[in-house]
Amino acid sequence: MIRAPAREGVIEAAEKIAAILPPTPLLPVEIDGVQCWAKAENLQPIGAFKIRGAWHRLTALSEDERSRGVVAVSSGNHAQGVAWAARRLGIRAAIVMPRDAPQVKLDNTRALGAEIVLYDRPGEDRDAIAAELIRERGGTLVHAFGDPWVIEGQGSAGIEIAAQLGKQPSRIVACCGGGGLAAGLALACPDSAIHVVEPFGWDMVGQALAAGKIVPVAPDAPATICDALQPTATKQLNLDLLSGRAEPGVTVTDAEVRDAQRWAFAHLRLVLEPGGAAALAAALAGKVPLDRGTAIMLTGGNADPKAFARTLSADA
Amino acid sequence: MIRAPAREGVIEAAEKIAAILPPTPLLPVEIDGVQCWAKAENLQPIGAFKIRGAWHRLTALSEDERSRGVVAVSSGNHAQGVAWAARRLGIRAAIVMPRDAPQVKLDNTRALGAEIVLYDRPGEDRDAIAAELIRERGGTLVHAFGDPWVIEGQGSAGIEIAAQLGKQPSRIVACCGGGGLAAGLALACPDSAIHVVEPFGWDMVGQALAAGKIVPVAPDAPATICDALQPTATKQLNLDLLSGRAEPGVTVTDAEVRDAQRWAFAHLRLVLEPGGAAALAAALAGKVPLDRGTAIMLTGGNADPKAFARTLSADA
Repeated sequence: MIRAPAREGVIEAAEKIAAILPPTPLLPVEIDGVQCWAKAENLQPIGAFKIRGAWHRLTALSEDERSRGVVAVSSGNHAQGVAWAARRLGIRAAIVMPRDAPQVKLDNTRALGAEIVLYDRPGEDRDAIAAELIRERGGTLVHAFGDPWVIEGQGSAGIEIAAQLGKQPSRIVACCGGGGLAAGLALACPDSAIHVVEPFGWDMVGQALAAGKIVPVAPDAPATICDALQPTATKQLNLDLLSGRAEPGVTVTDAEVRDAQRWAFAHLRLVLEPGGAAALAAALAGKVPLDRGTAIMLTGGNADPKAFARTLSADA
Repeated sequence: MIRAPAREGVIEAAEKIAAILPPTPLLPVEIDGVQCWAKAENLQPIGAFKIRGAWHRLTALSEDERSRGVVAVSSGNHAQGVAWAARRLGIRAAIVMPRDAPQVKLDNTRALGAEIVLYDRPGEDRDAIAAELIRERGGTLVHAFGDPWVIEGQGSAGIEIAAQLGKQPSRIVACCGGGGLAAGLALACPDSAIHVVEPFGWDMVGQALAAGKIVPVAPDAPATICDALQPTATKQLNLDLLSGRAEPGVTVTDAEVRDAQRWAFAHLRLVLEPGGAAALAAALAGKVPLDRGTAIMLTGGNADPKAFARTLSADA
C-alpha cells in the first residue's frame, strides 16, 4: 500500500465532496432523555455514505487509470457509490455483487450505468472474481473498505459533523462492515471516541480489536438482516487504524435493528435499511454510552419496500 | 383583522425560526428528466412545516396573552406545531382534534403536553367547539390557516428555499388544506409561480380561486387518505392573498398520492404522510409544469405505520 490514509487526506476528501454535494443534515435526537445527534447519510443521492469514499477514490485516478475503468465488490451501497462516481466522471465500472443482494440495490446500481457481475454469496470468493475480472480486462480495484482513499473519503462525514457541531463530537457511533467508515472517522475526529456496531455473529471488527489480529467471521455465523454489514473479514489496514483507537465493539440483534428502523420512521421520518439503523439500534438499546456531544451515524436507506413493510407491521 | 400578512412579516418569521431550527434540506430530485428540488419539511422536529406558523404566532403573543393560553383546531400537524411552540414558551395549549385523527398525531400532540379535546369529524363544527372553549376559559385562538402570523410563519419556508437556491424558485408546488402555506409562500416569493395541490373532491381552494369567492367542500365529498388536507372551506384572508396570484389549482387521487409516498421512500429515503406527498404526487403525475427552478414542498411525515406498510406492500 503506497498511500497511508491520513487526516490530511480526509480533509481533502471533505473539500472535494463539499464541492459537489451539500452536507447531509445533522438532526437532533433525544434518546433516554439525552440530546444527541443523528447524521442522516441516508439522504445522500445514492442513499448511503458510500458515495464519499467512491468519489475520493475515483477522482484520484490518473487519466490513464480512468480510461481502463474500475472494478468493485459490494453488496450494494459501495456498488452505487462507485457507479455514481464513475458515471459522473465518465469511467467504466464493473461491480461484483452477490446474487441475493436486495433488488433495490441491484436496480439502482444498474440504473447508474454500471455492469453487474453476480456471484453466489456462500459458495464463491468475491475478491477472487474481482481479481479475475481485472486480470482479463485491466482496471483499478476500488475495495469497499480496505483502500486508503475509500477510508479517507468515508471519514469526510466526520469533518462535516465537526463543522456542523462547531467541534468534534464527544463520541461517534457507527455501524461497521469491514471498518472503512470507522477508520475514516477515527482519522477525521481524533478527539472523538469511536464505537463500532456490528450485527450479532458478524462482529469480526470487534473481535479483531479484542484479539489484535484479523479474525474472520465463523462459517456458521447466524443470519442477519443487515445485508450491508456482511464482509467476512476486515483488512490489516483497517485494523491498524482502529487498534488502540476504537472502543470495544458492540453487537446488535435483528430485533434491535428493526426497533431502530421503526423509531427512525416515527421520530425522524427517515427510511433506514437494516445496516443503516445498526448504530441507532445500539444507542436505543443502551449498548453505547450517550452524551450531548454524541453523533450517531445513519448510514443507509436503501431498504426493500416489502421487508420494510413487514417491519412496520410487526409490533415492537 | 388588524394585522395584514406581509412579506416583511414573513422575513421576520424566517429570522425567528432560523434562530431556533436549522433549515430543512432542499434535496435535488429528478422527475421526467427534469432536475428540480424537494423541500423536506417532514424533517422538522414535529415532522411537518406547521411548526413555523405556530412559532411565529405564539412568540407574537403578549405576556398577558401567553398567561391565558392558546386554543387551536387541527387534524394533527398544526396541533403538534402549536403544542411544540407552547411547551417551549411555557404556554398552556388546548387543541380541538377530530376523533379519527391518525393515532400518531394524537399521541405526538399529547406527548408535547397539550390538552386534546376530541370531536366527531362529520357531525360537529370544530370552530364552534374552539370558540366555546375560548368563551369558557379565555385564551387566544391560533387558527390553522386563516391567521396572519400563521400565514407569515408558513411562508418562511419560501425564504429558506430562496436562500438555499440563491434565488427565488421559478415555481413552488405546495399541498393545500386551507391555504395557509400557499398564501405564505406567495408572500415570501413574489417572483415564483404558486401551484396549489388538493385531494380529489377537496379542492376548495382551487374552486375558490376559479369562482373568486369561498366555495365550501361538498357535503358528499369522497373519502381521501390525505387527512391533513380536509378543512371544509378556506378563509377570505387566504383567498385574498392567493387570488390573481396562484395558478389554477390541481387535484390528486389517493392512488397518485400512494405512488408519491412509494417514490419518496425509494428515491429520497423519506417518510411522507399522504397529505405531505400531495405536491410530489402532482409533480410525478405530470399535473404541474416542472423546470430546473421548481421547488416541491414535502410538507409532512407523520404517517401511520400500518397504513404506510400497506402502501409499501401494494404494487404501483
